[in-house]
Amino acid sequence: MELTDVERAIETVINQFHCYAVKGQKEYLTPNEMQELVVQKLPHLGKVRIECMGDPDEAKLEFGEYWDMMGDAAKGCRRK
Amino acid sequence: MELTDVERAIETVINQFHCYAVKGQKEYLTPNEMQELVVQKLPHLGKVRIECMGDPDEAKLEFGEYWDMMGDAAKGCRRK
Repeated sequence: MELTDVERAIETVINQFHCYAVKGQKEYLTPNEMQELVVQKLPHLGKVRIECMGDPDEAKLEFGEYWDMMGDAAKGCRRK
Repeated sequence: MELTDVERAIETVINQFHCYAVKGQKEYLTPNEMQELVVQKLPHLGKVRIECMGDPDEAKLEFGEYWDMMGDAAKGCRRK
């Protein structure tokens, strides 16, 4: 099955979630894991608001919220 | 500036919006433009719910909503 460029792009964003969501066994990211992902994978996308994720030990970022944060980063870099 | 693979992926998803948002001069997609994008660029991602976009002539899909719909498609293909 030959994916289009857009499908491969979406797949890449999904794979990062799975790759970093270790503690949550691919179901959620912890704020620390999200921070690591942002620093390592989104160095040029500027400020992704991690603070609003609450308690670093408790907060769990599920795929939907992760995708929303990627959307924020995307909106940020659209204006550039 | 060398983008990471994830940044290039996000850029690809953004560029599709700009590429198809002709009538809205890159500010919004019409349901017909979104339909075209889905058919041409997301053939394998299965059903992206276009119907909920309302009146095909009036409805305007801004970037945030477009990104959310991509998220729905992503969630759909995560379960596969």
